[in-house]
Amino acid sequence: MQSSVSYADIATAHERIKPYINRTPVFTSGFFSVQTSAEVFFKCENMQRVGAFKIRGAVNAVFSLNEDELKNGVLTHSSGNHAQALALAAKMRGTKAYIVMPDNAPQVKVDAVRSYGGEVIFCEPTLEARETNAQRVQDETGAVFIHPYDHPRIIAGQGTAFKELFEETGTLDYIFAPIGGGGLMSGTSIAAKHLCPGIRVIGCEPQGADDAYRSFQSGELIPSINPQTSADGLLTSMSELTFSILRKNVDEIITVGEKEIITAMRLFWERMKLVIEPSAAVSIAVMLNMKEKLKGKKVGVIICGGNVDLERALLLMTANK
Amino acid sequence: MQSSVSYADIATAHERIKPYINRTPVFTSGFFSVQTSAEVFFKCENMQRVGAFKIRGAVNAVFSLNEDELKNGVLTHSSGNHAQALALAAKMRGTKAYIVMPDNAPQVKVDAVRSYGGEVIFCEPTLEARETNAQRVQDETGAVFIHPYDHPRIIAGQGTAFKELFEETGTLDYIFAPIGGGGLMSGTSIAAKHLCPGIRVIGCEPQGADDAYRSFQSGELIPSINPQTSADGLLTSMSELTFSILRKNVDEIITVGEKEIITAMRLFWERMKLVIEPSAAVSIAVMLNMKEKLKGKKVGVIICGGNVDLERALLLMTANK
Repeated sequence: MQSSVSYADIATAHERIKPYINRTPVFTSGFFSVQTSAEVFFKCENMQRVGAFKIRGAVNAVFSLNEDELKNGVLTHSSGNHAQALALAAKMRGTKAYIVMPDNAPQVKVDAVRSYGGEVIFCEPTLEARETNAQRVQDETGAVFIHPYDHPRIIAGQGTAFKELFEETGTLDYIFAPIGGGGLMSGTSIAAKHLCPGIRVIGCEPQGADDAYRSFQSGELIPSINPQTSADGLLTSMSELTFSILRKNVDEIITVGEKEIITAMRLFWERMKLVIEPSAAVSIAVMLNMKEKLKGKKVGVIICGGNVDLERALLLMTANK
Repeated sequence: MQSSVSYADIATAHERIKPYINRTPVFTSGFFSVQTSAEVFFKCENMQRVGAFKIRGAVNAVFSLNEDELKNGVLTHSSGNHAQALALAAKMRGTKAYIVMPDNAPQVKVDAVRSYGGEVIFCEPTLEARETNAQRVQDETGAVFIHPYDHPRIIAGQGTAFKELFEETGTLDYIFAPIGGGGLMSGTSIAAKHLCPGIRVIGCEPQGADDAYRSFQSGELIPSINPQTSADGLLTSMSELTFSILRKNVDEIITVGEKEIITAMRLFWERMKLVIEPSAAVSIAVMLNMKEKLKGKKVGVIICGGNVDLERALLLMTANK
């Protein structure tokens, strides 16, 4: 498999996945435009199928495989949105999905994977146990392993959200997106630099899971150790592949604290009437923090997802006074 | 002033208010379509300016007045969305708004009215005190009183939401909207019966504020006495004007209990990633209750608003387990 990703891969991915995904809405907001003195466009992947951008990469990866490659199904380890996305992509393609999940995964996530016909294999909640079990299932079944982000076709799929955003807004001056494993930001930054050569690409991270920030500072890939943040989609560390793409394309990485994340989340729920997860609020918090630089600019924000337990979200917001 | 409302009034209102309101999105949903075996379209007035449909009527009423009529400003009594809507409409028209509010109104609503430049006059939290104070302010200032729903231009404005919905969906078989004072349902039902003559118009009410249901049963206008529901936008009683319009156009009024309302609200937040207020969930709950009749039909639902205090939403949802 190729080891890098080009804009052509993103354009190809977009044609491939279009029939299977939502073209999510792009919303503007008087409130956020006044706050930043900028023209702000939110690409709302919280309204995507499975509630997050992850379906883009999963569909691209699964539908890139031929009948023979798919005959034994696909496989991943994930407790998050990639698990549901891969299960749904496999269902749409008519193949089987094996999902290795930690045995402490929330029941609602297990149910979601099963509702798409995915087979759940439980393991201990450590990265080692996940990888060992995924390897074992792969050996037993011959299923194709599809990593959540360390995978060119996943990255190309995630880049299609920016392409759609650009098709509605034209050239942007800034784009904000969060960095977890770096798949979304890799695809976003490749599309952004190709379509808007003068754009500034801002990577957004929680202070409690700032592996990308520290990796950029040191010039070496530094994985997260025991990251702590409400933005549970951003706990993972980058891979060599995503780090190398980000080093090339990302202009700046900015971190924000938990209080800022939850304040931004609440503002978005209240003002936009949209449910977003804490990971999505990280980009909004970063944007609000650097508003002095945005005056008069055209700004895009990738809202990565809206999968949050409502009690948990409401507790986070109401405790954040 | 005329005492009835025609579709022509709604069309005129639409041209008048278009520059000042959002054309709100219409969303479909795989989940709700599967639940009902119908094609369901949600007209999302929670994403309207001030977070509710009320700005439509307020702008229509205020912008219908000439310079001379507006020279002393406009006036209403309301603790709800109409208060904010009238204050914003007056600001956009360059005139003054006096808003009589009960002295126990939430600070956030008082602040919202003031943020639009509205002058708040506090009174005791009774209908009598509100009316007395409104009369006094009118006598003192000469401002034009604009009732929240007992007003042909308000009703015509509220009917524009259905017109926009129809422009995107074409002919519908069913339309669901809530009934509080009856302004939204009056406008909706006039537009619906004109644009889709075969449509069934379903009025939706909480069991704890079922004055329209009881009025329909008895054939006489029966006001609510001490209504109790989480759907705080539906506590008001109809007027003779709205009752007469509803008797002509509404095919059926269906009530739902509190548990059904909050369950529907939660489903909508989780599945659509949209924040809606309990009053908006009433229509969804009614639709889900009568799904047997909806199989294969094209169904519209007016989502009336999204103004809910998040602390209160948390309490409602966690108490509803």
